[in-house]
Amino acid sequence: MLDDIFRYIDEHADEFVQDVVRLCQQPSISAQGVGLQETAELVARMLEEAGATAEILPVVGGPPVVRGALSGRAGPTLLFYNHYDVQPPDPLEEWQSPPFQPRVAEGKIVARGASDNKGNLAARLAALKAWRAVHGELPASVIFCIEGEEEVGSPHFLRFLQEHRDRFAADVCLNEGFGVNSRGQLQIILGAKGLVYVELEVQGPALDVHSSWATVIPNPAWRLVWALSTLKGPDDRILIEGFYDDVRLPSAAELAALEQIPPEDAVARQVYGVSRLVNDVTGVDFWRKHLLEPTCNICGLVSGYTGAGAKTITPRTARAKLDFRLVPDQRPDDILQKLRRHLDRHGFSDVILTGALEGEPPARTPPDHPFVGLCAEVAEQVYGVPPVIMPTMAATVPMAQLRETLGVPVADAGVGYPDNRIHAPNEHIRIADYLTGIKYLVVLLDRLPSLRTR
Amino acid sequence: MLDDIFRYIDEHADEFVQDVVRLCQQPSISAQGVGLQETAELVARMLEEAGATAEILPVVGGPPVVRGALSGRAGPTLLFYNHYDVQPPDPLEEWQSPPFQPRVAEGKIVARGASDNKGNLAARLAALKAWRAVHGELPASVIFCIEGEEEVGSPHFLRFLQEHRDRFAADVCLNEGFGVNSRGQLQIILGAKGLVYVELEVQGPALDVHSSWATVIPNPAWRLVWALSTLKGPDDRILIEGFYDDVRLPSAAELAALEQIPPEDAVARQVYGVSRLVNDVTGVDFWRKHLLEPTCNICGLVSGYTGAGAKTITPRTARAKLDFRLVPDQRPDDILQKLRRHLDRHGFSDVILTGALEGEPPARTPPDHPFVGLCAEVAEQVYGVPPVIMPTMAATVPMAQLRETLGVPVADAGVGYPDNRIHAPNEHIRIADYLTGIKYLVVLLDRLPSLRTR
Repeated sequence: MLDDIFRYIDEHADEFVQDVVRLCQQPSISAQGVGLQETAELVARMLEEAGATAEILPVVGGPPVVRGALSGRAGPTLLFYNHYDVQPPDPLEEWQSPPFQPRVAEGKIVARGASDNKGNLAARLAALKAWRAVHGELPASVIFCIEGEEEVGSPHFLRFLQEHRDRFAADVCLNEGFGVNSRGQLQIILGAKGLVYVELEVQGPALDVHSSWATVIPNPAWRLVWALSTLKGPDDRILIEGFYDDVRLPSAAELAALEQIPPEDAVARQVYGVSRLVNDVTGVDFWRKHLLEPTCNICGLVSGYTGAGAKTITPRTARAKLDFRLVPDQRPDDILQKLRRHLDRHGFSDVILTGALEGEPPARTPPDHPFVGLCAEVAEQVYGVPPVIMPTMAATVPMAQLRETLGVPVADAGVGYPDNRIHAPNEHIRIADYLTGIKYLVVLLDRLPSLRTR
Repeated sequence: MLDDIFRYIDEHADEFVQDVVRLCQQPSISAQGVGLQETAELVARMLEEAGATAEILPVVGGPPVVRGALSGRAGPTLLFYNHYDVQPPDPLEEWQSPPFQPRVAEGKIVARGASDNKGNLAARLAALKAWRAVHGELPASVIFCIEGEEEVGSPHFLRFLQEHRDRFAADVCLNEGFGVNSRGQLQIILGAKGLVYVELEVQGPALDVHSSWATVIPNPAWRLVWALSTLKGPDDRILIEGFYDDVRLPSAAELAALEQIPPEDAVARQVYGVSRLVNDVTGVDFWRKHLLEPTCNICGLVSGYTGAGAKTITPRTARAKLDFRLVPDQRPDDILQKLRRHLDRHGFSDVILTGALEGEPPARTPPDHPFVGLCAEVAEQVYGVPPVIMPTMAATVPMAQLRETLGVPVADAGVGYPDNRIHAPNEHIRIADYLTGIKYLVVLLDRLPSLRTR
């Protein structure tokens, strides 16, 4: 029976590729406010063309969210999270074809947004169209939640979701979508780290002072260096009192999942051009540190004279930008409070915390959740190799909003591959991955009703 | 007998003021290579007009040094050190009159270089002219050493002086000249700190990396912070092994001199807009720390993203600019070696030392040297109040070159005052200070032969 749909997908490949082209032709740069309303309307039209109802829901202070819905026969309701905005296309001169004039060639679709995230959205629409063309009614109900400012940190998404909780009630959720690894295994990503971003600032003298005065005029750069050095030591252990208190111990299922992820420490050293990794981690220790541990990272430092040559001054100000990646059950506001308390206790009340962004909490779905098991079974069936189950990504996406606000398990599967250059020039997807991704979704839909009885 | 000369000086005040005007009309910006040869030639002409012989001595890689000499009856030979170059006049819009069109008004001479250092040079020429006009032969021989790149750190001066040691042999030396303090006391400054300037650099990944990788990619900003924090702690004690080994204990005469300097800690707090000084020093402790202790100062820090808002990266590089002000008998090259060894011993071999300037050694003349005693006696006689004897300045000038290469005691006295705005717009001297400064030099010349017999 699925053979029919698979054949349909292959026969209509060109049509489905054109869906991606159509979405990518429409610029939607959230950082610049370009084309967002137009893209929301295009997405709504394409939802309707796929048989769903579509609504454009206003968001206070941001571009609208597009909601789509299509009822199915029975079984759990599946929520698709996607976003229709893209990163700015700069640097333009490095694109081999214009970023908003999609190029279909050599088995690829090249355009800004092809991989992040319009290809994934198109694959989901294609799965619906294919099912309906071959079989009619869907085996399960689906809801789409497609936001327009993921690329600028989803600043209004949490509040929006809290206010529209009922409209997006579902049993399971597929996040926006990554793709296969270099071995062709589908990566099923079950979580995201949280994020705290904050600036530390120290004020010194009212002006840059001739450094002969360094004897007696307090130097804000020194104050900042000393304060920072109390936060983390060379062994990479974060020293803020209570920082690790809420870090949940990894479950047996999470540790087992790590064991199955192919090693990447050598790749990381090579890609980033470093001779060694922090604490020389390798193998499963690499994954445990990379995925399950929080960070305290200096993003930027600036004080005094930074130009060429020598200038002998005691600077008037010093600033550092820090980010913390959090893991369950750390909370952004709690970490900020602990940072403030730590600085005060260590004699650094003069270090001002400023510019803190609204943090994002971490979230993870357990690898032994039945929905994850189903995704894995389907992935092995469709891709021909077992998937890689990642308990979380190391980065931050608005997954906690879905996981916690809606109370659903969230998995993640998409049509990308490692070299798809998201956020960079010549972003693309491979058409073969795209078609396989559509098939994966079709099988998952087909199997969803079995979740109830597992 | 000196009354005659004093009267002569007062009667010829306009002529002597015009000497300053004439020097300041000629731009001589060493940082920009402007007018240096022309100024050297002007200075040579003015030396000859004052009765001295003058030579323009070439300097390899820099502007020439002007040597002047005038034989006297007997007694010790006095060396005058001066420089004929000036700082750039920027910012031009803040000058109330053009910087190289001297304005004589309200008892002041306003021009770039009026105080630093052409007014002092003119005062020395005026003293010679007055003496010769009234009494003929000088009571002691004088030599002038007038360089042209003091404002860019005298990079060729030491080598020049070593090569021409014999041409500048003298018994005592007057440095370029400061002036009176706010109480009208002449400041006699007997030393200068040395200087080491060096950049610390840490290389991280080959590119700025998404900060989700902060888990395993070493962060050069952290490495730099940790390395710096081993150099000095919040108590301001420098922790580089052996850093203080060669610091000479202050002599009883130096400590006694500190006791006589009017307090300035409150002034420093106010001028530089800080609520407290390092270690809350006051009174004589302020002077002891400010003048007699070495420093380790951060002039600049830079790493990663320093613009507005948030960017989540692990930076690829981090750099700090440091300067150390040294006191006798610390040596610049030794301090650099100790810094390198300290970093290596503390596990920071990855911190590269780069951009080190050729350091300058510190130098001090003892306050109980007979020449200093003579200067102080003359100062009290001419200024009507006892002078302030500063064992050293906190800053760095090429005093060590004179003191060590020529083996002479070096004192310092000039025609400036606290608000004379050297290096800033509207630099000026007060004509009254200028005339008193000429009289001081005349009396000092008169008393010099007594030095032999003290």
